[in-house]
Amino acid sequence: MSIPKSHRAIVITGAGGPEVLEFVTADVPAPGPGQILIRIHTAGVNRHDCNQRAAGAHHDGTAVPGLEASGTVAAKGEGVTHFQIGDPVMALLQGGGYAQFAVADQALVMRVPDTITLTEAAGLPEALFTAWWNFFGLLMLQPDETAMIHGGTSGVGHLALQALSALGYKVLATAGRAEKVEAARAFGAAAAFDYHDPDLAEHVMSATQGGGVNVLLDMSAGAHVAADIAMMAIGGRIGHLSPGHGDLHVPLRSLMAKRVKITGSLLRPLALSEKSKIATLIRRDVLPLVGNQIRPAIAAVFPISEAALAHAEMEKGCHIGKILLSVVEQ
Amino acid sequence: MSIPKSHRAIVITGAGGPEVLEFVTADVPAPGPGQILIRIHTAGVNRHDCNQRAAGAHHDGTAVPGLEASGTVAAKGEGVTHFQIGDPVMALLQGGGYAQFAVADQALVMRVPDTITLTEAAGLPEALFTAWWNFFGLLMLQPDETAMIHGGTSGVGHLALQALSALGYKVLATAGRAEKVEAARAFGAAAAFDYHDPDLAEHVMSATQGGGVNVLLDMSAGAHVAADIAMMAIGGRIGHLSPGHGDLHVPLRSLMAKRVKITGSLLRPLALSEKSKIATLIRRDVLPLVGNQIRPAIAAVFPISEAALAHAEMEKGCHIGKILLSVVEQ
Repeated sequence: MSIPKSHRAIVITGAGGPEVLEFVTADVPAPGPGQILIRIHTAGVNRHDCNQRAAGAHHDGTAVPGLEASGTVAAKGEGVTHFQIGDPVMALLQGGGYAQFAVADQALVMRVPDTITLTEAAGLPEALFTAWWNFFGLLMLQPDETAMIHGGTSGVGHLALQALSALGYKVLATAGRAEKVEAARAFGAAAAFDYHDPDLAEHVMSATQGGGVNVLLDMSAGAHVAADIAMMAIGGRIGHLSPGHGDLHVPLRSLMAKRVKITGSLLRPLALSEKSKIATLIRRDVLPLVGNQIRPAIAAVFPISEAALAHAEMEKGCHIGKILLSVVEQ
Repeated sequence: MSIPKSHRAIVITGAGGPEVLEFVTADVPAPGPGQILIRIHTAGVNRHDCNQRAAGAHHDGTAVPGLEASGTVAAKGEGVTHFQIGDPVMALLQGGGYAQFAVADQALVMRVPDTITLTEAAGLPEALFTAWWNFFGLLMLQPDETAMIHGGTSGVGHLALQALSALGYKVLATAGRAEKVEAARAFGAAAAFDYHDPDLAEHVMSATQGGGVNVLLDMSAGAHVAADIAMMAIGGRIGHLSPGHGDLHVPLRSLMAKRVKITGSLLRPLALSEKSKIATLIRRDVLPLVGNQIRPAIAAVFPISEAALAHAEMEKGCHIGKILLSVVEQ
């Protein structure tokens, strides 16, 4: 298939609600050295995209959001050696996923295992990179430690639960409704709790035989920070995925009493060299399990032209698993 | 010299100001297995003691405050092999230092180098253990990194500046008055600043050629947390020594953008095994420099009977270096 000069893409036309997303005609990007042009099959929707849209922010000069996608290799930039035209791939992107074509660094492109569909594959990259970077790059989860995920049914949460539990880690989770708590258990949580429970910390201490949580992944912007510190083990680490709005109010004396470390990171601005290391770990440890113990739960698939509906669904917060945009004609 | 059954000691009689400290007659403690009874020459006064007094807290069953002292070995518990009666020593204590006798774990007792006096020696243990535990046990300062101390003329700060700079680390410092800023430079700070300066973060970035601070030791309970994060390097670590009052308000987005880690600890409750490791590092790296590049600045020495005056002086916050209590008759 030849590559057209222009394609259809969703752009952020200003700061605002889902209505600022418009489906337009734009130039197809050209792959630079080490980059791959992907003919997109399905794109993943992430909370980040909603925040980006609300802020009206463009990334790296493009108004097209989208941090992950699946598809086939359409063209290769200089120095791309590991892929052939037509290979089924999934990739972590720097933006640009809500479109018919997008470029990705080859280090962040992975062949889609034949145990899952291209639609499913679109839901993997952002969640796996986020989980692996946080648990192993930033928070140094050790095999004998207990992990915990606030938001166990989110895109990141449900895949992290599947992957970590499949690899033998003990992972707990919280979620916001009974149905989600149940789903978190099904995704592999050794125990799951409602994060509105006022006795949450007590339940977690009991579920860990009083040892507490060693590594906590929080996408709630610290909504439960006092309970979090109360449930941490001595020397535990908390990693934040969501900046939320305003300051995090940390009870300093409790933090000091347990020597808890609080940190956080943004995946997108992370150096390519760091992301490449994470990709290597994912290829080695996670991909062999994909399709068996690890499979994205698909909450909804919208046609790309209805990206605004997908954002509204994400912001409602009732979904379990991934929200996707179908780009190919069905 | 024989050991009396009773001795004179300062006790905390309740929660309150310096006036709750009373000089009383009490039983001399007996050294347990692995412990040494020290005939105290001089005791160090620490901010912790003032907080303990204000809270009316007793530690480990004793109402006698005091976390460090110098003196001579008066008696040895079972299994003490490395010291002889009469040896000049300094020790980190679990409390009990404001007295004529106190017990210490032998792992936390060090022979006083003959390059300093017993009076000076009383000012070393708490500062050196605190600095070494934080910089090397908790915050993992690396040789090519830049450190920073908020409170560069405090008991901990001025000795940490001397020791780290003597070992070749680049250390910056802040202090609260021009005279203290100057003193911090004299103690070895590569650059020192007034922490009231609204452009502090900018000055620090400039002093680090834009690289920022890798490891920050904060005894201000996060009084400058926004500026702190603005002056940190990517992946920098902040360690808190003082819990202050109330919550630490952390700008979460800024923290995430730099992947800064915030933590803190309390030295006293730290396991003996951890403290012993720190003692080993101090014996190896710091003690050989004591008396030459490292010497406690003595702000004031009060007779032990005037411990209340020493606390008032500490809480005034104008001193540079250590406040000590003389226990032996002069």
